[in-house]
Amino acid sequence: MLKPPEHQVAGHQARDGRLGPLVDGSGLFYKPLQSDDRGANELTFYTSFSSEPRIPTRIRSFFPGFHGTQLLRASDGSGLHPHLVLDDLFAGLRLPSVIDLKIGSRTWFPSAPEDYFRKCLAKDRKSTSALLGFRISGLQVNDEDCRWRPSHDEVRQFNAKDVCRILRRFVSSDPASDCEPNCVFASAVYGGAEGVLAQLLELKAWFEEQTLFHFYSASVLVAYDKDGSEDGRYPNRARVRLVDFAHVLDGNGVIDHNFLGGLCSLIKFISNILKDPDNISNSNAL
Amino acid sequence: MLKPPEHQVAGHQARDGRLGPLVDGSGLFYKPLQSDDRGANELTFYTSFSSEPRIPTRIRSFFPGFHGTQLLRASDGSGLHPHLVLDDLFAGLRLPSVIDLKIGSRTWFPSAPEDYFRKCLAKDRKSTSALLGFRISGLQVNDEDCRWRPSHDEVRQFNAKDVCRILRRFVSSDPASDCEPNCVFASAVYGGAEGVLAQLLELKAWFEEQTLFHFYSASVLVAYDKDGSEDGRYPNRARVRLVDFAHVLDGNGVIDHNFLGGLCSLIKFISNILKDPDNISNSNAL
Repeated sequence: MLKPPEHQVAGHQARDGRLGPLVDGSGLFYKPLQSDDRGANELTFYTSFSSEPRIPTRIRSFFPGFHGTQLLRASDGSGLHPHLVLDDLFAGLRLPSVIDLKIGSRTWFPSAPEDYFRKCLAKDRKSTSALLGFRISGLQVNDEDCRWRPSHDEVRQFNAKDVCRILRRFVSSDPASDCEPNCVFASAVYGGAEGVLAQLLELKAWFEEQTLFHFYSASVLVAYDKDGSEDGRYPNRARVRLVDFAHVLDGNGVIDHNFLGGLCSLIKFISNILKDPDNISNSNAL
Repeated sequence: MLKPPEHQVAGHQARDGRLGPLVDGSGLFYKPLQSDDRGANELTFYTSFSSEPRIPTRIRSFFPGFHGTQLLRASDGSGLHPHLVLDDLFAGLRLPSVIDLKIGSRTWFPSAPEDYFRKCLAKDRKSTSALLGFRISGLQVNDEDCRWRPSHDEVRQFNAKDVCRILRRFVSSDPASDCEPNCVFASAVYGGAEGVLAQLLELKAWFEEQTLFHFYSASVLVAYDKDGSEDGRYPNRARVRLVDFAHVLDGNGVIDHNFLGGLCSLIKFISNILKDPDNISNSNAL
């Protein structure tokens, strides 16, 4: 029984008769191939990445596992449609808190057609992409009986100060409150040898070296579950994954300086929160 | 006796009755304040940077020393004009090889006025900035009796492949030749504990942390002198300096991801040359 994923926070959603991804509830995620070049590009990326021997195993684990394509009944009722078969990144999480961070100060690539270039550029300037090197594309924060999930319109209007606050609120209890975020989960989620920061630093080291791919408009997805331990207060290892590869280009021997710069900016935000969860020294910035 | 600097490779030049910088031949460089906002911005940057206690001493040495302003007769004959008084970065070098690398995939800043934004964007897309994260703004390569100094028009047309080749030619003998660059000076100039790569890595570590300034349209200048040792074949420590601060903005608590990304891209080019001076494994890239 396929159904729309419950915890998808960005991108096209399979609701109200629209085309969107589906999950099978036992670990697989089916993403419909977009009918323009984007679908073909994403399939090309997954195929090439899967068979690329130069990807270190640790790095491979940041990407969704790829299991080919499959013809499935599309969620919009249009009949059979090819889907990418990927790992469901939220499998096993009961009430995940999720944030989708689109990385890079620009989402357009040098060879982009003029209309696509203009559309991306306008969004990059209007959102926080140009200023911060990344933007939030969507999020939900769960805590016991409370969920905070801003609407698409709210997300689009986040400014730099909002982003700074939301990265703190993402690891706070009582996330729906307007009070100053308490960051009680910061060290458990962001910190430690297996935390988000350590994982982002691993990715950064790879991006400093790799010249195989340029990831335009791709996202870092972070998910964790507060319900992961017996007392329900200490989260499981946070999952950090890269997603959305419809605009991946051949690196041609050049590093992905656009992605790397944005990733370093995100890393600085996260490490500031860990250094100063009470937000004393950063209160005047932004 | 003030005169135009002999080794300036980019920017406005004090020749043919135009306004440009002057040197006194004993270690000082006089840069005329540009009459629009750029002059005021650059002076503001130097003043603020000079008195900023959070700049590590090692990092400070990458910037030209600043000695206030001085009213001097302008090189264009227009009378007295305020000049920034800076260290002459080529003082003591007899026949420097110099390259000016404008860092960042974009030279416009988020709050730029529309016409300036459009002008910068067009240049970034036309040059290698968008693709490589940096572009060459000018260079000269000296070797014994031979100097290679491409014209401004030639420099503007460099593509990614040219840049790759020029960074090799910059550390080769017989630089004016069209033969494959031999990179005989690569390890002496780029390598070693005090070489260009080590200096760029020091800068990178600072840019990963510093959120004080965003350096739009600034350059990394690299200069070295083959004439530095007794047999004339082993260069002095190469000088790596940051220059051109007419478009420096307050970092507001965010790292300069645009500069950092471009710097990392340049670092990768330099380290590729050191790993493979014969250019065997990179011959298919770009």
